[in-house]
Amino acid sequence: VDTARVSGLGWTTTLIIDRVLPGVRGLWPDVTVSPERHARQLRAVLDAWGMPPADAATTVDHMLYADLHGIDSHGCAMLVHYHRRLQAGALAATPATAVVTEHGSTALLDGGGGLGHAPADRAMRLAIAKCRDAGLGAVAVRNSGHFGAAGGYAALAADAGLIGIAATNTEEPAVVPTFGAEARLGTNALAFAAPAEPGRPFLLDMATSTVSLGTIARAWRTGRRIPAGWAVDARGRPVRSARRAALGRRLTPLGGTRAMGRPKGYGLAAMVEVLASILPGAERVGHFFLALDPHAFREPGRGAFAGELTALLESLRGTRPLDPLRPVLVAGDPERAVAAERRRSGIPLARAVVEDIRAVARASRAPFVLDGAR
Amino acid sequence: VDTARVSGLGWTTTLIIDRVLPGVRGLWPDVTVSPERHARQLRAVLDAWGMPPADAATTVDHMLYADLHGIDSHGCAMLVHYHRRLQAGALAATPATAVVTEHGSTALLDGGGGLGHAPADRAMRLAIAKCRDAGLGAVAVRNSGHFGAAGGYAALAADAGLIGIAATNTEEPAVVPTFGAEARLGTNALAFAAPAEPGRPFLLDMATSTVSLGTIARAWRTGRRIPAGWAVDARGRPVRSARRAALGRRLTPLGGTRAMGRPKGYGLAAMVEVLASILPGAERVGHFFLALDPHAFREPGRGAFAGELTALLESLRGTRPLDPLRPVLVAGDPERAVAAERRRSGIPLARAVVEDIRAVARASRAPFVLDGAR
Repeated sequence: VDTARVSGLGWTTTLIIDRVLPGVRGLWPDVTVSPERHARQLRAVLDAWGMPPADAATTVDHMLYADLHGIDSHGCAMLVHYHRRLQAGALAATPATAVVTEHGSTALLDGGGGLGHAPADRAMRLAIAKCRDAGLGAVAVRNSGHFGAAGGYAALAADAGLIGIAATNTEEPAVVPTFGAEARLGTNALAFAAPAEPGRPFLLDMATSTVSLGTIARAWRTGRRIPAGWAVDARGRPVRSARRAALGRRLTPLGGTRAMGRPKGYGLAAMVEVLASILPGAERVGHFFLALDPHAFREPGRGAFAGELTALLESLRGTRPLDPLRPVLVAGDPERAVAAERRRSGIPLARAVVEDIRAVARASRAPFVLDGAR
Repeated sequence: VDTARVSGLGWTTTLIIDRVLPGVRGLWPDVTVSPERHARQLRAVLDAWGMPPADAATTVDHMLYADLHGIDSHGCAMLVHYHRRLQAGALAATPATAVVTEHGSTALLDGGGGLGHAPADRAMRLAIAKCRDAGLGAVAVRNSGHFGAAGGYAALAADAGLIGIAATNTEEPAVVPTFGAEARLGTNALAFAAPAEPGRPFLLDMATSTVSLGTIARAWRTGRRIPAGWAVDARGRPVRSARRAALGRRLTPLGGTRAMGRPKGYGLAAMVEVLASILPGAERVGHFFLALDPHAFREPGRGAFAGELTALLESLRGTRPLDPLRPVLVAGDPERAVAAERRRSGIPLARAVVEDIRAVARASRAPFVLDGAR
């Protein structure tokens, strides 16, 4: 098993436990931690790495956002991957985010070669501030790193009553262009948020591949085969083994097969590459953020945008369902339901993730506080 | 056959010829017209309707754009549909586009209840002008109509050296939300253009459904079944009959099946609805346009955006192909190849479309000039 390639995704220990030593699993139960304890653990590690306190607080916020909302592959499970890159000298622990160039409605930031959460958060807040003045604001970031879940940045705009767009490229090629035999684009993510009822924005957060690498790795861990159309081999044939798909890294663009709209998914992945990477001149990872004030586009005196969007979302939720027990949802609903449950009952962490974090804490000389569960 | 529902798409005559009277087809060969003659015919009809000359010129430009680039369902084939709506009083022939509200970087236009081409063109050009000043410009349009191919508006930005986004909702529900039993959203289109080599922009132009209604109607005309995943019935089962799919109007969002990313396609369709319809407060059809100056985001002294984008596109085109005879393309390449061929050899028109236009011209007391072929 070529764990080296997968370990970059933070699942080394899980893979060993689940696939190599399945009998061990019962002895190492998963744990549930409170959001507070989860945040405390992450903060301890980032502090030990020497990250400036304000950046560490922001980074913890966004990692916690992912784990709270069920986007488990983009939260604390990434810590072991970040640590490995830090040790390899591929990631700056104390990066200085800098404004490279700035105009009235636009700016370019440099992430300083560190993790992406802090520069991304700063960039979206700058776009929001510009939007307050001009009705529109956009900020690109170059020389950045993994920023977790794109939806957490778009949501900042919606929380401010604005429409927000967040996009990021990803570092390693994993998506195959239509007609191509090899991966050329990342799983490039796109998020879009718009304010509706308070706390219930429309919030789309998607990779531009059919499924994420995390979904395929989860199938591997649990021993399930994947549907034809998620990944292909070097001759374009569907790969059904999750293990081969995770190691081969030839995911299909959104739509999967050509008949199911694959050139569109490929086009969307390339669009994100243009905005997040080519636009800022990103050497490695780059991001793009846009904030847009709905009321800069509306007739004076017309009712609030949020009210009209709420009516649309309610109409979508009211669509007659195929199965009465499975109502129609809108983007953001499933993640909010998970977050509500996890705020009440805690965040479930796979034992393997906990052990990875234990190892990172030890190597970083940071306290390990996940032992006491909640 | 419930042609009434399909005729709204402009294929009545085609359907009768192809499906009811197939023997007639050989007697009525398809024709090829030069772009000049095609434009002359459209202009004659729009003039007869009383459309102001400047608006008529713009409308012809965009209809010709669609037919030149192989987006046949969005060009002159729509004329019969426009005419029917005109006769029904559902479309203003001489609409006055007006600026409802305007700020430094943003504006809202009212399309006056007519066709969408002229107000959409004006809106994108206004966004481009605002972008020249501020680095960003966005304009929404309400109370508009069908505007043809979204890519033609995004391309205006790329021609001006800018990144352009164009989005439109569509009037009649045709796309089923994930878990839903009925259509609630249109085939809402999204286009994205970015300048690369002169005349060869990156140009993505896509419906947010797996395939367009036009693709399904084409399958019906030619007697082909459609793949499972393009359309479903009221119980969510795949519809393989193109006729049933066209009449049932329950298309799947991009991705087709849930496993193939359908919630993402549903989310993208809703995103376009938010931007093009909820944002401007559109009663019927609305649009959204954004222009973005790449050099407002780039370090002073850094090379041109277009050069770096060209390098990305060349790298994508250079992807090792599955089939050496089928190279990897980028969004915009296939349509440009069709346009080059049609500029040389003329635009092929199905006889049924020609006959529809003949009928419209007669009813509108406009000259009919397509008889002489090229």
